[in-house]
Amino acid sequence: MSSQDQEQTDGPIPTDYDIAQSTDMEPIWELVEPWGLGLDDLQYFGEYTAKVKHHAIERLREGAADKAQNLVLVTGMTPTPKGEGKTVTTVGLGQTLNHIGEEAMIAIREPSLGPVFGVKGGAAGGGRSQVLPMEDINLHFTGDLHALTSAHNLIAAMLDAKISQDDDLEIDVNNVAWPRAIDMNDRALRETVIGLGGKTGGTPREDSFLLTAASELMAVLCLAGDLEDLKTRVDRIIVAYNKQDEPVTVGDIEATGPVTMLLRDAIKPNVVQTIEGTPAFVHGGPFANIAHGTNSLIADKTAFGMGDYLVTEAGFGSDLGAEKFMDVVCRIGEMTPNAVVLVASVRALKYHGLDQWPVDYDGIAEAGVEAVEAGFDNLDKHVRNLQKFGVPVVVSINRFPDDTDAEIQAVLDHCQDDLGVRVAESNVFADGSEGGVDLAENVVSAVEDGDEDEFTMLYDDDDAITEKIQTVATEIYGADDVKYTGGALDDIERMEELGFGEYPVVMSKTFHSLSDDASKKGAPEGWELEISEVYPSAGAGFLVALTADALTMPGLPADPAAADMDIDADGNISGLF
Amino acid sequence: MSSQDQEQTDGPIPTDYDIAQSTDMEPIWELVEPWGLGLDDLQYFGEYTAKVKHHAIERLREGAADKAQNLVLVTGMTPTPKGEGKTVTTVGLGQTLNHIGEEAMIAIREPSLGPVFGVKGGAAGGGRSQVLPMEDINLHFTGDLHALTSAHNLIAAMLDAKISQDDDLEIDVNNVAWPRAIDMNDRALRETVIGLGGKTGGTPREDSFLLTAASELMAVLCLAGDLEDLKTRVDRIIVAYNKQDEPVTVGDIEATGPVTMLLRDAIKPNVVQTIEGTPAFVHGGPFANIAHGTNSLIADKTAFGMGDYLVTEAGFGSDLGAEKFMDVVCRIGEMTPNAVVLVASVRALKYHGLDQWPVDYDGIAEAGVEAVEAGFDNLDKHVRNLQKFGVPVVVSINRFPDDTDAEIQAVLDHCQDDLGVRVAESNVFADGSEGGVDLAENVVSAVEDGDEDEFTMLYDDDDAITEKIQTVATEIYGADDVKYTGGALDDIERMEELGFGEYPVVMSKTFHSLSDDASKKGAPEGWELEISEVYPSAGAGFLVALTADALTMPGLPADPAAADMDIDADGNISGLF
Repeated sequence: MSSQDQEQTDGPIPTDYDIAQSTDMEPIWELVEPWGLGLDDLQYFGEYTAKVKHHAIERLREGAADKAQNLVLVTGMTPTPKGEGKTVTTVGLGQTLNHIGEEAMIAIREPSLGPVFGVKGGAAGGGRSQVLPMEDINLHFTGDLHALTSAHNLIAAMLDAKISQDDDLEIDVNNVAWPRAIDMNDRALRETVIGLGGKTGGTPREDSFLLTAASELMAVLCLAGDLEDLKTRVDRIIVAYNKQDEPVTVGDIEATGPVTMLLRDAIKPNVVQTIEGTPAFVHGGPFANIAHGTNSLIADKTAFGMGDYLVTEAGFGSDLGAEKFMDVVCRIGEMTPNAVVLVASVRALKYHGLDQWPVDYDGIAEAGVEAVEAGFDNLDKHVRNLQKFGVPVVVSINRFPDDTDAEIQAVLDHCQDDLGVRVAESNVFADGSEGGVDLAENVVSAVEDGDEDEFTMLYDDDDAITEKIQTVATEIYGADDVKYTGGALDDIERMEELGFGEYPVVMSKTFHSLSDDASKKGAPEGWELEISEVYPSAGAGFLVALTADALTMPGLPADPAAADMDIDADGNISGLF
Repeated sequence: MSSQDQEQTDGPIPTDYDIAQSTDMEPIWELVEPWGLGLDDLQYFGEYTAKVKHHAIERLREGAADKAQNLVLVTGMTPTPKGEGKTVTTVGLGQTLNHIGEEAMIAIREPSLGPVFGVKGGAAGGGRSQVLPMEDINLHFTGDLHALTSAHNLIAAMLDAKISQDDDLEIDVNNVAWPRAIDMNDRALRETVIGLGGKTGGTPREDSFLLTAASELMAVLCLAGDLEDLKTRVDRIIVAYNKQDEPVTVGDIEATGPVTMLLRDAIKPNVVQTIEGTPAFVHGGPFANIAHGTNSLIADKTAFGMGDYLVTEAGFGSDLGAEKFMDVVCRIGEMTPNAVVLVASVRALKYHGLDQWPVDYDGIAEAGVEAVEAGFDNLDKHVRNLQKFGVPVVVSINRFPDDTDAEIQAVLDHCQDDLGVRVAESNVFADGSEGGVDLAENVVSAVEDGDEDEFTMLYDDDDAITEKIQTVATEIYGADDVKYTGGALDDIERMEELGFGEYPVVMSKTFHSLSDDASKKGAPEGWELEISEVYPSAGAGFLVALTADALTMPGLPADPAAADMDIDADGNISGLF
């Protein structure tokens, strides 16, 4: 959630930055000591941020057997473009679980630098539920994104060197599957021609840049079990096809060693603290459309050895992030979620009830209880979807300052009376853990009442690829059927030939709607999902099914947020949040 | 110097990596404590690397008044492509000065990541004269290069957003002066076309990428006095010209604030230790052809407050790095060098004596004293050039394992008898400070005998631009005259109109020869220097005069060093050095 929204509607609430600056942080080594991390377990980045060293990761993972390993996933209904507060809820819930006597860790994604300059709003929670030091986390942090960018572009440079200087691999320049990467919103790099200027400039070809968070390397980093597994996954990434249409991998171009070397530190989880002193892993941040959209598995596994609860978050609405968490991340990581928190907001419900596109936020603020109720379709579909996985669901209504009591009550009543699902109002943004007690108690009761054996993924490894796609499309998105266009069916046949038939499928779809049409609100019915392309992320270990062009390189708006940012002679930053 | 060379010729000498691994490093806070830096003065990156915080920089700079501030510059004769050991000599001399009872700090450039993958050889010294932790320094280090890359590309993205979305500045797309940057040797990005793909991709235009070290931002970072000065310099960088041919600056596109913010930590000098425990600043690394080629002024100024000696290094031969250090860096930084160490090697002397191109290293190894003597022309010219600045010169013969005693003696005799200049054999690579005593004692005596008032730059601020160029060309390079081609004279007129007439001039010339022709060895005479273009680095505060196309983006060779690099499951790196 962009904290800016909540501020603007209620003047005197201090900004995230003010709250952060007025918080006394503990040195990170003191903070994590009671959680089982000693001085020598940490690699420091200043006083308040550290990476966990490999030996400590191993020790904590082994120690997880003695802990409860309660895994709580935070997801959301179909959000407005401004977001409904999943990170705030994740951080707030983690804080509150500790507040009520449980031992809870938090794991969230780390922000990408590029988008910081495009549209306002940090990605570290907000208000009294944020992770600190926020300005570091939102800027270079521990350099993970930079390491990924370097590693990604080393592959690209070595690939082009192969093509132009020593092509014993017979690479097809019209079938290169590895773009370049940059952690900057830069639309001019979406489509480019490279290798110009004659022989010394290499071989001319079409190329593109994607945001580093959209690189397969980011997905690989977040799914790798350890350094050795990382290397194995890097090695098998497909970067191009040769003239016989066979895959050319990172291993084939001899880049596996140096690429893994560049990620030596990036694979270690970063630990920081929330505003209330709860330790939080902030590590990895893959896209939730062309990748799985959750923080690193290594962070999750390490956290299991530190507390009894782990609260983590999945990107976009539950149709995207949560489905992928259940079907892809839990499959690869062999994890079982014990509860799901579905974040709803009065604003999002009205957004679906009013069915406007583009959104008129003023109109939303003014609409009343009726508009809220008109949006229940969307919430209901998300609840029913999540229940299909056999995991207890708790709806969390993230209260914004201009929500009325009547609006909140309408949602509470609907969840309790019509859906029979656990529900709580959450005020963790304004009040921190004081505002999350009802939510946390509901989560504890859900976990205690749940049965891990009931957790079920939507499809099996050996289901046909088309069957996997069909299942997600109809069960989760509410489509009547799936239609394959372009070469999608050929792609699928090819994936099976290449031995990727058992991979789970990551669906790339708009997050603005449960359907594949961003303008359709609520719970659209009577439509077909169109699949235009299927390609492998062989390193990550999943297939990607595109429903449309996936935007992997955002642009800067005409008036970018960057233009309002500044730093004074003493190093004080303004305009970042 | 690439340490690889010295190893290969003498089998059982341990590798740089082995030596580094077998060294017990001290925690950096303990190491620098006697040098005036306390626990709270440092921002830690692991146990052995730290940045110095702003308040400590200020304190040390003020304290410099109580120190001797003896500035020793290490430069070299025209090198072979493998380098003759300037960094080894710099580190070894710093160590030895401490060994003989002086208090000496070291300041060198930080390596660029890109070249690490192209050609073998670290950039952190070698043997028993290296800085540690070498693998960190050669990889991501403290993220300075990454911060510069991000800041550079934020300017580019904001510039293209202006061009395509909101061009009240009327930018001429055919006169953009700000390429993109990447810290990777990637020849395919030398010449590109960007902005393709229709309206959402921005405005199509030609573009190029340069190595981050070649970005004007790197030069700006290294010449900035403090954060405020950095911001002032960033603001005035010229990124394009408008349709009326007037400069468009970083300030004009509103990028000053966020760019400076991204460099908030990068401007703080990084302190590490040498293998013998001498503190060393490793900070900033601008090119020595299109920029000034020395580490940051902030590091130098801070070091003045920590010891009585500062040993620092300039890129390439003395015609490039040392001339720029005297005429540009000392001018902007208001510093006076107290001695210059000119690094020579038997190999380089033979290289000039044999006058081969390309170099036959086997032939060099086999050639004897006569070939050495045939190369004295080059050494002599460098000595005479340096004497023109009024600073005492010490020739340091960096001994390689296959140099014979007769060869070394021939150089010693020549320097003493023919040139009358201080000279010492240096064995700091093999023996650390035990091998540098003669050199260090010569340096101390040179400093003590020298007179700061005799230091003189080659030209004055208010000399005409053509006069400045003429002076360097004839006095340093040994050219008969200067010839202006293309639009160079128009460029100069334009620079004067824009008010840049008083800037010093950075000459961009090949480092393989004293002349502008890489194949001409020795001390070429009877030639004219051709200047093809002059452009401003308005942020850095100098003009660049190109004698040919400056290579700002190296490529990977057919068999890149990266292909031999690896990391094992425990994180041990191989092939990096």
